[in-house]
Order: sequence, then structure tokens, then C-alpha cells
Amino acid sequence: MNEHGNEERVFEMGVVIPKRVIQEEDESCDCAHVLVKEFEKVGFEVERVIGIADEFIKLAAPLETLGRAAAELQIKKRTHIGMDLQFEVEEVEAFVKQPDGSVFSWCERFQCYCHLIYGMVNNSKSAKDLKFDGKEIKWEIGENLILKLESENIVKQVFPLHDEKKRKKLLKSWALHWWHFTNQPIDEIYSYYGAKIAIYFAFLGMYTRWLLFPAAFGLTLQLIDFGSLKLVMLPVFFVMVILWAIMFSQFWKRKNSALLARWPISYVDATDEGPKITDGKASSWQPPMELMKVLEYDRIKEKEAFQKSEWLGRFMRFRNDAIIIFSIICLQLPFELAYAHLYEIIGSDIIKFGLTAVYLFAIQYITKIGGRVSVKLIMKENNENTEKQADSLVYKVFGLYFMQTYIGIFYHALLHRNFSTLRRVLIQRLLLSEVLENLLENSLPYLKYSYKKYRVRHKKSEKGAAGEKIQFTSRVEKEYLKPRYSASIGEELEDGLFDDFLELALQFGMILMFACAFPPAFVFAAVNNIMEIRTDALKLLAILRRPVPRAAATVGAWLNIFQFLILMSICTNCALLAWLYDEEGKWKIEPGLAAILIMEHVLLLIKFGFSRFVPEEPAWVRANRAKRTTQAQDMCSKKLLRTISGVDKNFAEKKLK
Amino acid sequence: MNEHGNEERVFEMGVVIPKRVIQEEDESCDCAHVLVKEFEKVGFEVERVIGIADEFIKLAAPLETLGRAAAELQIKKRTHIGMDLQFEVEEVEAFVKQPDGSVFSWCERFQCYCHLIYGMVNNSKSAKDLKFDGKEIKWEIGENLILKLESENIVKQVFPLHDEKKRKKLLKSWALHWWHFTNQPIDEIYSYYGAKIAIYFAFLGMYTRWLLFPAAFGLTLQLIDFGSLKLVMLPVFFVMVILWAIMFSQFWKRKNSALLARWPISYVDATDEGPKITDGKASSWQPPMELMKVLEYDRIKEKEAFQKSEWLGRFMRFRNDAIIIFSIICLQLPFELAYAHLYEIIGSDIIKFGLTAVYLFAIQYITKIGGRVSVKLIMKENNENTEKQADSLVYKVFGLYFMQTYIGIFYHALLHRNFSTLRRVLIQRLLLSEVLENLLENSLPYLKYSYKKYRVRHKKSEKGAAGEKIQFTSRVEKEYLKPRYSASIGEELEDGLFDDFLELALQFGMILMFACAFPPAFVFAAVNNIMEIRTDALKLLAILRRPVPRAAATVGAWLNIFQFLILMSICTNCALLAWLYDEEGKWKIEPGLAAILIMEHVLLLIKFGFSRFVPEEPAWVRANRAKRTTQAQDMCSKKLLRTISGVDKNFAEKKLK
Repeated sequence: MNEHGNEERVFEMGVVIPKRVIQEEDESCDCAHVLVKEFEKVGFEVERVIGIADEFIKLAAPLETLGRAAAELQIKKRTHIGMDLQFEVEEVEAFVKQPDGSVFSWCERFQCYCHLIYGMVNNSKSAKDLKFDGKEIKWEIGENLILKLESENIVKQVFPLHDEKKRKKLLKSWALHWWHFTNQPIDEIYSYYGAKIAIYFAFLGMYTRWLLFPAAFGLTLQLIDFGSLKLVMLPVFFVMVILWAIMFSQFWKRKNSALLARWPISYVDATDEGPKITDGKASSWQPPMELMKVLEYDRIKEKEAFQKSEWLGRFMRFRNDAIIIFSIICLQLPFELAYAHLYEIIGSDIIKFGLTAVYLFAIQYITKIGGRVSVKLIMKENNENTEKQADSLVYKVFGLYFMQTYIGIFYHALLHRNFSTLRRVLIQRLLLSEVLENLLENSLPYLKYSYKKYRVRHKKSEKGAAGEKIQFTSRVEKEYLKPRYSASIGEELEDGLFDDFLELALQFGMILMFACAFPPAFVFAAVNNIMEIRTDALKLLAILRRPVPRAAATVGAWLNIFQFLILMSICTNCALLAWLYDEEGKWKIEPGLAAILIMEHVLLLIKFGFSRFVPEEPAWVRANRAKRTTQAQDMCSKKLLRTISGVDKNFAEKKLK
Repeated sequence: MNEHGNEERVFEMGVVIPKRVIQEEDESCDCAHVLVKEFEKVGFEVERVIGIADEFIKLAAPLETLGRAAAELQIKKRTHIGMDLQFEVEEVEAFVKQPDGSVFSWCERFQCYCHLIYGMVNNSKSAKDLKFDGKEIKWEIGENLILKLESENIVKQVFPLHDEKKRKKLLKSWALHWWHFTNQPIDEIYSYYGAKIAIYFAFLGMYTRWLLFPAAFGLTLQLIDFGSLKLVMLPVFFVMVILWAIMFSQFWKRKNSALLARWPISYVDATDEGPKITDGKASSWQPPMELMKVLEYDRIKEKEAFQKSEWLGRFMRFRNDAIIIFSIICLQLPFELAYAHLYEIIGSDIIKFGLTAVYLFAIQYITKIGGRVSVKLIMKENNENTEKQADSLVYKVFGLYFMQTYIGIFYHALLHRNFSTLRRVLIQRLLLSEVLENLLENSLPYLKYSYKKYRVRHKKSEKGAAGEKIQFTSRVEKEYLKPRYSASIGEELEDGLFDDFLELALQFGMILMFACAFPPAFVFAAVNNIMEIRTDALKLLAILRRPVPRAAATVGAWLNIFQFLILMSICTNCALLAWLYDEEGKWKIEPGLAAILIMEHVLLLIKFGFSRFVPEEPAWVRANRAKRTTQAQDMCSKKLLRTISGVDKNFAEKKLK
């Protein structure tokens, strides 16, 4: 909507500056005034709002401004011939539009806003004197205005604003639509929040919908007494659940690529960059014979440099992963085992409670430290882009959480070889984690928000007339007080999606790895996730600020973690079954163990064969894409060729000179 | 070389017609003469050669002729902007050249030749009367000349000819270069034989080079007596070999993509087509609002049709695979086991020999029938292209060979639980297969060729003056008598590469699956493969006709089979180790078995994790490609955009009318 200048303006970015005590007489020196003027010069539409504690500058950009920024940024956009080309304002028609009809996605708009806001420098011939609340600042020639003001603490923050109209619409059609269960308006979520968050909710929705099947099966197994058949039903349940998980992970990939076909995002965008050793030199692609030798040599050298950097990067990542795994095994594992063991041998409930409190306190610290160490290690890796860095963090930190969540349960399973104890532990954990985490996740941000509001009110009322109730009239100020969508660990690289995905992954592992021990766990998970969809939506729409959009178009590292958990669960369930039949003593160990081993191997084979059987991209997506692009290519094939060969000739001539 | 008209002509295709007894007086009616005239009209350069038994028309095409044919065929070629576009003669400069500097690859040239040869129709206004050896043929208007003559048995064959100069060069630099061991001039092989054969030799070379490491290790294990350490050395050897195999399969993928980066072939060429339900209707990609509804409906219907055809195809393939697997297990397995069992219990050597003869005879039939059934089943699958069909055949037929080759060995391993018997069987099989197969493979075609030559001579000498020795003077006639490079099974879909790959895969499985039982097997394999490289080269260059080039750019199904064999070998070796330690009775079964199980799981994990650790495409290939294409794209970005948006507007306007 924002692109159409004739419609109402939508302010999408906010800049916060403190409220001034002294009003400047000379407007041209006033810092806020200069800032607004500069914003207008860049092409923004500006609105100033005076709040209770701070002053806000709301910014909206018409299409021309955004287009200019995009051209400056050399943003590559999908064209109708299926190739990503640099954006040009005049040739808007050549680019594929967003599903809602606009030219730029929210992610691209955000990039343009940032480029424009952080691109304002002093272009005049002299330094300018700015005044703010009595303080004097010299804006030097060529100096960046926002960075300068940020360093002087005059610009407190730049943050994306909610689009009130769309937010209300989404609140109605998404967050408060309880009776829709797993259905969500994914396209609208995409155009409001960007690809990554939309993909999360699509994943959550599909996962929950798929969960209904094992939940029903698990419930049947729990409620109906199969009598002597019970020993057969459990392996059947296990096999079905594993097949279900394998199919889910593959069909999710198909769903993902179908979604990406709807949104004009290229799958390979992020991975196609590669490490940068180009150093600005342009090497030709059809070098004339004279230069062949030199270039051949250059190319070999370049190739070697690339290979060196590739393997060095890989080695670094490997080393870091080894460090993390080693420290998890050597430091965290004994700690967890010690806790589990102590908890077992202590009789008194009070000491148990105290022990748990100490444990919870310590574990908080350990994960914090682990996260910080991981981030530090990752910064030394030469990952290709921030999404890769985030993935690297996810793997490392998940290792921590994996140990923390499951090792206790494994201990119980191994120690007791008793399904009823294991079941009790699982129920405890599931209930605890679901109830507690959902509560914390949603109430904590709200409490933060309330506290911030209270503090502002308190300050104000201290200064002004006491006893008078202060109302927050401006929406932008309320938004400013809302907390960010941030991760609990590794904030530098991740946003709140990390916690949401982590919760899902831990739940998935919990229900799948011990599926044989406690089939009704799937019901818990299904119910929890149906709630989760709406509460997460509510959290994003009502409690938090609008998150910074991220470009990634897949679930990323989390899918790999899901696949790893499926693998693990094949092994753990087989182990559980072996223990179970061993304990009950009805089967002899040899044929039973052999059967379980064969079952395990068959399942592992299916796990790895299934992705060959069902490709990641549905045929219709591929065909659609191929049809569209070849159509467009064929229509302008001749012209394209003329263009290319023309350029090629020029290039060759240049090289020869 | 062929493209440059000023260089000497290279005749790349031959057409065979029988030698006439009666010479026609009226040349314009003479069939051969008309054929030559038509060829010349199309733009070929023609040479007629009169052989001993037949007459040959050799064809060469200058660049213009090929270019015209390529444009007619709408061949898509890689351009400098990294996009495949339809070939246009005028814009040759826009397309990436082959490594040897020519415009078309041998595969593309062959396509053009075929298009031209089989594209000659009677364009004149009346039917023409042709005479051949007294027979009269009416060439109707619009009738295809070659097809007509083929049906009348006048054109006996159309086949690709060797390029004598290049063949001799390759013979010197490749087939007779024994002391180069695994080094081969892959680029030259590519430009002479096309991608698929070059890829085979690159694979063979890399595989052999890599084999040297386990061969050395295996030999050490055999020659040096480790004493009490021997029980530890075997698992170490096993782990090393599996790691070696995992790394090999992944590094081969990297090598393959590096090779494809050198040759202008796109990786996804074959897979990007998809099933064809387009039925000529062109649906727009940015439909105006009025048509949106209708199109939306259309698109949903189209999507459904696609999904239906996709799943139907998958179901058909699954059904066919199930049929094959089922019949292998139910029919072949008992047969093989019966043979193995009978062979064991029979005492007399003579009966054993007879039994083996009967078995070998029967197995020949079984594989033939299996191959024929597979081909029939595959024809009913809707595979996307012939390469996919060939892959499907490979999977099915490999199942047959897998049973045939390994089940006897498994039987021995299980029955005796005795490594020395197993070792003896392995040595027998390895020696037998290597010596016999290499001998057969190379002598059979030569014998065929000699026999054919003899028959022609014999016929001739019966007719002409007896006692006079007849010499084959024309090279083209000799080539005509040479056998084709054809597969022993499923000839309709595969060429001789099938047998060569099959041999490699069976060898790989043999040495890897029983690695623990007989470590020096790797030495056999390495020696055999070093020979194999040169004998295969010799076979292709000297004994066989030039093969029809195939477009595929990867090893295809065979790599998957190699991966499957690696998986299998992890399991079989673990089983062998378990049996070994069980039999020797030095370890207790529990800790030993547990250790082996853990080792197995770790290896399986590594097998599937390794491909994530080392990507299939080297960073320098990716970076090179990205750099080249983005450079070209950036250079003509604006012009491209103008072209696209112009076409887009036209298109939208047309739609609206």
C-alpha cells in the first residue's frame, strides 16, 4: 500500500529523540528541525509526534524514494525472464510484483529505509552548528548525521513501526481466529512481516495439522486396552510415527518451495554469493588469445585462493564445532548427570526442591555462557552471510539445549528400565515446559511493557502535577515502549524466531524420541501447538514491536535439526523397545533383538531413501516456473542475444586495447 | 575443427547404401545421385566412396549449415549472462564457446546432423520417380526421403564417423599412454565423445587414483603380521575404508561439478523440463485484473493436473520397482540360494562343473528376461526424458545383478562363518570376473568385426575372381563393419556405458562389502582398473564405431548405486566383524556387539552428515560462475530490463484486447 502515493501515507519507520526542555529560537539550528528537513530532502514524508517523554519522527517513503534507494543499493530483483537483475526505476515493469501488488517486499522496503536514513551526510560546503537542549554539536562536512546524533545520544533509536490498518486486519483475520485451528493467512503475514516469520508460521501450521494423526493414534493406544496385542501395537506405533516424521520433513520441503513459488524470492539467493576474494578485478569470460596464458595463470591462482579459503573456513567451522561438542560432553554432561543422579538418591522433597532451584539457576548461566562463547567462535568463522552465521549459532546452541533437555530423561530410561517412571518424568517435563514456557513467553514481554509504561508515568508525575493520571495518547510512543522480538541467547545474530523454533524442536524431540514410552505425548503437543499459533500471533501483533524483517526463505538449520532428531529417535526407540521386551521377559533376547535391529536398519534406509522418492520441489512449481520464464525468454530471446553479443564485443575490444 | 570452413573438411556422418549391379543411365532418376543432390541442397559437403560390398556417402557440415539446423531445432545454448537461450546464427558471439574453441559440442552437432538428414522432404510440386538397381520408388510430395529409403532397404544405415585426425591423436595421447596410469586428456575426450563418456573416464580415473590408498593399506595388512594387534587392525581397516568410500563419493560430486564448469553444460538441463501438460496454451505471468479470476481457476486446475500426473508417475514407478524387487526376491533369490547350496553339498567335481555350466546358462536367460521386462515396465512410466528412463533401467537391472553377484558370497559367509572359505570364494570371483570380463569385453567386439570382414570377403570372392585376396581400402567401410558400442541388456535405452559402469559397481560392491574378510581385494581392483582405463580407451578408439553422443552430464543413477553399496557395506562389514569375533570366542558377545553396533551407527551418521560438511560444488566453481554471469548481467542490465519490460507491456496489451 505504501508505494501508491495517492493512497494514505503509511509511516513505517520511527526515529526517537528526547523531548527538549529548552525550545530553540532559531529553527535552522534546532537539531530536530534540521533532521526533519534532511529527511524531507531525501524524499521522505515526515510527521512529528510529541509524546509524553520523547519526541517521535515518523517516516513514510513514496515509491519514487524507495525506487531511488533500491537503485542505489543495487538491489537485485526477480524479473519476468526468471533472472535477478539490478533494480532500475524506469524499468519497473520488468520486475515481478509482490502477491499484494506492490513492487517492493517489506524486507526490501526496510533495506531502502535504512539506506536512506543512514545515508544522510552533510553535502554543503561548511560544517553546520546544531543545537539541542542547549548542547551544541558540529555537523562536519561529509559526516553522517544519524550516526553523529546517535553517538551524541540525541537520536535514541530508529525502529520499524506497525502499520495500524494492516495490523488490525491481521489481528482479526489471524490472531483472534481461534476456530480456524491451523489455518492462517500466510500471504498476508508474508507481506506484513517478511518471508522468515511467514515461513515459521507456515511450518508451525503444517506441523500442527500433521500432528493430529499421531495424536489420534497415540490416544487410541492409550485409551483402548489391546490386551495381548499390546506388545505388537507399540512397534507398529513406533514405525508409523517414524514414517510420519520422515514424510513430514520431506513434505515440508515441498510446501516451502511451493510457498517460495508464490512469493518472488529466489531459493538460491543467499548461497550464490560465495566468499569474496574478487578484489575488484574484472576478469573476462572469453579472453582473447593473447591474454589467455596470463589469465590461465591468474585463474589457477584464483582457484587456489578460493580453495584455500574454502577449506580454511571449513576447518575453522569444524574446529569450533569440535570445541563446542567437546565442552558439552566434558562440562555439561557430568553436570546434568550429577543433577539427575542426586535427584534420584535424595529422599527429602525439600532438598529435592532446593536442588532443582539451584540447578535451574545454574543452567541459566551455563546456556548464557555457552551462547556467548558460540557467538564469539562464529564471529571468527568466515560464514558467507548473516543467515549462515545464524544457522551456525543454531547448531551450536541446540547442542547445549539437547543435552539439557534430554539427558535427564535418558538417565531415567537407562537407570530404571521401567516405562512407568519414564512416563511420569515425560508428563512432568511436557506439562512443565508447555505451561511454563507459554506463560513466560507471553507474560514476560507484557510485564516488561507495563513496567516501562509505569516508569515513564512515574517520572512524569514526579516532575508534573502529581495525582493526575497520564494517558499515552500517541500510538508511536506506546510502540516505542514495547519490547523487541529478540532471542534469549545470541541476540547479535538471531531474533525471537530462535526461541520459537527452539521450543518446537525440543517438543518434537521429546515426543518423538520417547514415542514408545508415552504415545499420548502427541496429544499434548498438538493441543499446545494449536494454542501456540494464536498466542505467537498475538504476541507479534499486540505485545511486541514490529520485528526487523529477515530475508531468509527457508527454515534453515532447524530443518536439519528436525532430521537429526528423527534419526536419533529411530535409535532411541529401538533401544527402548529392546529394553522393554528384555525386561518383560516374554521374548527371548536373540530373535527380538534381531527383529528390532532389522527394523531399525529398514527405517534408517527409508529415512534416507525417501528424499529420493519424493523430490523437494513439486512438479507443478517447477513446471510453472519453467513455463513462465521460458515464455518470457522466448519472447525477447533475439533482443537479449543482440544485447549480450553487443556487450561481449565491446568487452573483448576493451580487453585487447 | 569442423566449424571452420576454411580448414579441411571433417566428415562426421556416413550413410550406407548397397552397391548397385545395374548402373542407371539417367542420372536424375538414380537414387544415390538424388540423395547426394538433396544432401548438397541442404548444405552438406558430400563425398561418395565405393566400397567392396556397399557404397558410402560421407557428410560434413560447415558452420552455417549447423547453425541453421540449430536455430530450427531451437537448441538452447549457454550465453554469457549464464542463461540458456535459443540459438540464433547472427548472434553467435553471445554464446559461450566450447573448450576447443568451436561453437557446437559434438552432441549438438550430432543433433543437427540428424535433424538435417531426417528432415529432407520432397518440396517440389510433383512426386519424383527414383530408380535403384532396377527397383522403382515413388517419392511423394512432402514425404521424408531417408525414412522412405530406409523402409525400402536402400539406405542401410546412418551412423557417426570417426574423425581420423582426432582419433589418431587420442590414440597416441590417451589409449597408448600406459605410463600415465590414471591421467587422461579428459577435455579432448569430451570434445570427441561428448559429456557422458568423458564423465565415465573421469570417474574411472578418479576412482582408480583413490583406490591406491586402500590398496596400499590392504596390502600392508596382508603382508605384515600384526600378531595380537590383528583383531584391532581389522576394525581400523574397516573404518578407514568406509570413510574413504564416503569421501570418495562426495569428492566425486565436486569433481563432476568442476568438470561441468569447464564445459558449458548446465547441470539442471535435463531436470528442468518437467512433465508436459502445457497443451500449447500460453498463460500470462502478470495477468490484468479482469482475467485474474479465470486464470486463478485455470491455475488451480493446472496445478491439480500436474499434481495428479506427478503422483501417478511416482506411483507407477513405485509399482514397477515393487514388481521388480518382489520378483527378484521370489524368483531369483531361491534360484541363487539353490545353486549355492547344491554347489556346497555336491562332492564330485565333475557334477559341480556341470552344475556351474547349467547355472551360467540359466543366469544368462534370467538377466535377459529381467532386462526385457524392465524395459517394458519403464516404457509405461512417464519419465521426463530418456536419461531418466535409462536411470530407471539401471536401478532395476542392478537389482538383478546385485542378487546374482553377491548372494552366493553372503551364503558362504553365513553358512561357514569362516573367513578362509569366504576369502577363497572372493579370490575366485574377483580373478574370474576380472580376467574373464576384460577378455570378453575386448575380444568379443574384435571377433565380431573380423567375422563380418570375413563374410564380406567371402561373399565377394564367391562372386568375383576366387583366390584373389580382397583388401578393404576405404576407412569408412571398415568402420561400417565395426560393432556398435551397445549395452548387453536394455539396448533400447542404454549404450555400452551401461556394461562399463556395471562392471565398476559390481567390483566396488565386491571389494567394499567384504572388505573385512579380504583386505588385499583392493589391490586386485586397483590393478584391474589401471588396465581397464587403457583397454576401454582402446576399445572405443580402435575396435568400435564412434558412439552416438549422449547429453547427460553426470554419472546419474550409478552414483546412487555406489552410495547404496557404501551403506550396505557398513552393515555387512559390521555383521562380518560380529561373526568373526563371535567365532573366535576371545571377546564376550555383549561388549563386542555393542561396540560394533555403536561403530555402525557412528559410520552411518558420518555417511549422511558428510554431504552437509563438504558441499557438492566447490566454492571456486560457484564463485567463478557467479562472477562471470553477474559481470555479464551487470554490463547489459539496463538493456536487458528495457527489453523485458517492453515485451511485458506488449504482452499485457495483447492480453487485454
